[in-house]
Amino acid sequence: MATNEFDLIARYFAHQAVNRKDVALAIGDDCAVLDVPVGSQLAVSTDSLVAGTHFLSEADPVRVAHKALASNLSDLAAMGATPAWVSLALTMPEPDEAWLAGFCQGFFALAEYYNVQLIGGDTTKGPLSLTLTVQGFVPQGKALTRCGAQSGDWIYVTGTLGDSAAGLALLLGQKSVDDAALAETLIDRHYCAQPRILAGQALRGIASAALDISDGLVSDLGHILKRSGVAAVIEVDKLPLSEELRRFEPDAEKASQLALTSGEEYELCFTVPEVNRGAVETALAHCGVKATCVGQLRPGTGITLFNAGEAVDWQLQGYDHFAE
Amino acid sequence: MATNEFDLIARYFAHQAVNRKDVALAIGDDCAVLDVPVGSQLAVSTDSLVAGTHFLSEADPVRVAHKALASNLSDLAAMGATPAWVSLALTMPEPDEAWLAGFCQGFFALAEYYNVQLIGGDTTKGPLSLTLTVQGFVPQGKALTRCGAQSGDWIYVTGTLGDSAAGLALLLGQKSVDDAALAETLIDRHYCAQPRILAGQALRGIASAALDISDGLVSDLGHILKRSGVAAVIEVDKLPLSEELRRFEPDAEKASQLALTSGEEYELCFTVPEVNRGAVETALAHCGVKATCVGQLRPGTGITLFNAGEAVDWQLQGYDHFAE
Repeated sequence: MATNEFDLIARYFAHQAVNRKDVALAIGDDCAVLDVPVGSQLAVSTDSLVAGTHFLSEADPVRVAHKALASNLSDLAAMGATPAWVSLALTMPEPDEAWLAGFCQGFFALAEYYNVQLIGGDTTKGPLSLTLTVQGFVPQGKALTRCGAQSGDWIYVTGTLGDSAAGLALLLGQKSVDDAALAETLIDRHYCAQPRILAGQALRGIASAALDISDGLVSDLGHILKRSGVAAVIEVDKLPLSEELRRFEPDAEKASQLALTSGEEYELCFTVPEVNRGAVETALAHCGVKATCVGQLRPGTGITLFNAGEAVDWQLQGYDHFAE
Repeated sequence: MATNEFDLIARYFAHQAVNRKDVALAIGDDCAVLDVPVGSQLAVSTDSLVAGTHFLSEADPVRVAHKALASNLSDLAAMGATPAWVSLALTMPEPDEAWLAGFCQGFFALAEYYNVQLIGGDTTKGPLSLTLTVQGFVPQGKALTRCGAQSGDWIYVTGTLGDSAAGLALLLGQKSVDDAALAETLIDRHYCAQPRILAGQALRGIASAALDISDGLVSDLGHILKRSGVAAVIEVDKLPLSEELRRFEPDAEKASQLALTSGEEYELCFTVPEVNRGAVETALAHCGVKATCVGQLRPGTGITLFNAGEAVDWQLQGYDHFAE
């Protein structure tokens, strides 16, 4: 069993299938040395996952790795960026080869799928946690930001919402379902969301603002509203719910509330000016992603929810790691 | 007291004096969006510091911040890169405003000194730790790597070695000195090393290989030897020791051993072909850094130590977080 930091790094992280031409120097020196294409800007995002806060210590390391990288790639997707590189800082109490092997399996499978090269990082001793920094390219001036939305723009989300929260409730034993296959599907959706990379790229020049849903739709949409200086109306009966979520939560109102607050979905929420609405469907059809219009921006501040044409006053909270 | 993750980030990290023109979009969106100068390559390094492993939980947060950023900037220095941006992932058990205020003071003071802009990161709940990813620029093809050293090249180190280990021994109570001012100086050197940014830049085109001393000279030099396929002779009586280290450890042999193994020094170790030796002094004089030749590369593998002309067989170990 390897007990030396450098042996561990060499053994598990120095070998990978991805070998990008824009990586002049990768793992093994003081820094990675990288080439950014002329005409592109660099998009950079950092996310930490801490055992006990973001995942259970006993969680399958394959899934933890997928979730960690997917959540970070999702931030690139939200900018319309093309992923290129990732740095990994891994802290663990002691060298655990079985855990590392599983982690690498999940990590490199997703990294290879998106042609992302691991360019470096750090391995340290301490309570289990990991921090990833992903980097990607976006054509000069074309990044999808949070501040371009205008009153009248339509609000869209990709995929379906709520499954991640349902899977987490099952994981935590807060709720149970009789159907084991249903439970497994929802838990899998909690861990194994796919970042909407191609959808984000397809929305460049079409969406006026975009972000990924990591803290719940109402919480995340709030960031667009604040940065863009607008209000929103959401029609909750239009929220896209999966068949599995409807089976998990047959009460339609409660299911909608799950969809509004479910964090770690890694679907995109984006806004589209009226003139671009026709382009959305075409652009996303090419990447096999369905988007649903769930509301519209208005002058003012805040979010108003409508259910079947009636304003509703649901008390909802987004996910906040530090909230009581 | 702010208890919301977003409030904390906004309050402590959204305001800084550095405002670089190459940062198109900084904190507050899914990604930072950045411009890399044409003709430059990007140098990227990631380092984690974990409470209990890399610093004591009760350590002054001003010093922890300095150490975290300095150690990461030191990796850029070792490549000859010019620092530009930093991402910060901060994990803490609960929002601690006094700690955050101290941390920001130390962090931004050093960031401003090197014109480094904080471009984003993550704030999460969990055991105290921080991970930084720094990025900088280096002219195309000019990065100082670990693999260009050749037999016959001379081995240099900047500054003095050993003070960091002495400061740590005092901090941990493994040793004491009567002179309180001496103790304070050595502890300060443990926490507050200055990354050799200008020296690294000055050595581009002069040094054949370089790295920064984070795990101890013998351990770090080993990386150059392995990557470059050479052996080294070090003349331990030529190691640059501070006056304070000599007072801390009057035994010359023990002082040399401290200098050989002291980690977290953040001095540069570099190799220079005979033809460039004259250029070293001139280049470094411009940035006020002294470098000392401590040995030479030879064909073969491994490091041989000489003390006053005699080979010595000291058993030394570099710092390894995972070693028993």
